[in-house]
Amino acid sequence: MKTNNGRLIVFSAPSGCGKGTMLAEILKNEDYCVSVSATTRQPREGETDGVNYYFLSKGDFLQKVADSEFLEYAEYCDNYYGTLISEVDGKLSEGKNVILEIEVQGAMKIREKRPDAVFVFIAPPSISELRRRLRKRGTETEEVIEKRVSQAAGELSYAEKYDYVIVNDDLDDAVSDFFAVMRAEKLRTKYSENTINEVLKNA
Amino acid sequence: MKTNNGRLIVFSAPSGCGKGTMLAEILKNEDYCVSVSATTRQPREGETDGVNYYFLSKGDFLQKVADSEFLEYAEYCDNYYGTLISEVDGKLSEGKNVILEIEVQGAMKIREKRPDAVFVFIAPPSISELRRRLRKRGTETEEVIEKRVSQAAGELSYAEKYDYVIVNDDLDDAVSDFFAVMRAEKLRTKYSENTINEVLKNA
Repeated sequence: MKTNNGRLIVFSAPSGCGKGTMLAEILKNEDYCVSVSATTRQPREGETDGVNYYFLSKGDFLQKVADSEFLEYAEYCDNYYGTLISEVDGKLSEGKNVILEIEVQGAMKIREKRPDAVFVFIAPPSISELRRRLRKRGTETEEVIEKRVSQAAGELSYAEKYDYVIVNDDLDDAVSDFFAVMRAEKLRTKYSENTINEVLKNA
Repeated sequence: MKTNNGRLIVFSAPSGCGKGTMLAEILKNEDYCVSVSATTRQPREGETDGVNYYFLSKGDFLQKVADSEFLEYAEYCDNYYGTLISEVDGKLSEGKNVILEIEVQGAMKIREKRPDAVFVFIAPPSISELRRRLRKRGTETEEVIEKRVSQAAGELSYAEKYDYVIVNDDLDDAVSDFFAVMRAEKLRTKYSENTINEVLKNA
């Protein structure tokens, strides 16, 4: 493994865990970027191809599926969404750490394909706190909130399949946890072969 | 695993890597302590039983070996040295992270017995820098220095069997690396079962 390559980070969190705010903080560090997904849905006003999404026709998308160009893909509300291998590997080879924001089932598909990825799950401090946060938004009915809460509980059962679980109680702590994880991952022996060779080289 | 237990840290470094200085910095944090070894050698002036070593008679030492009370032990210059399981587990159950400063072969004996331990190897920036540091001490002949350098190179071949390799180039960076490793280790999913249960409990 080239040491100057970035690391792929699979990043999942139930709705209401503050994932967006955490990501915004992390992305202030220019060593990090997000992976831009491909989709067959129509661009909305203000969305730019290659920034928000790669907008593809259904035919093009399915051709890329057939050509195994996707790390993972899924159909959602009659549209396809997927992560292009070229997108991820291109940014990794630039030395960027690439964050793949993805739900739990998509994440599990990546587990076997990319054993080099760091899997990070963001959890709420508690289910009751998650409910409180969703209510505070004031944008959803009680019924929708309860649906999201029970979905979150289901997603939490996947947490143990990730490498790390970060509880987002305090934003600064959670972001520091994330960077500590990335610092430690760089020191893991399996990624340090070059380090050891460097040390020995200069005899 | 009880979350309020400390972690066992196996800490190895070739001579001249600044392990002592690093340990002194780490031990300023009261969540950390070192494991006190047992030995059959005579106490030197100023050494206190239970602080520098547990001083045992050869008979007592061998009885404890027979009773499987050691995590590891070795004979060196006609004396026995070893790590008592009771010493390590006692401090862990007090919530302390216990650092076991040990050479590579002793460390490897612990690998299988304690899969819960964090294995950290401290490396010099380069072999030539290691040689420079040993010379700077001015306490050893050139012959002894070369012997230590070649021993260090041999020990470095064990580095890949550790979980983490920290290059001690700058002391502050190396100590920060160590604490980042410990912070990340706490977030690893295999030690987070209680975290996830806590989150789900408060529905």
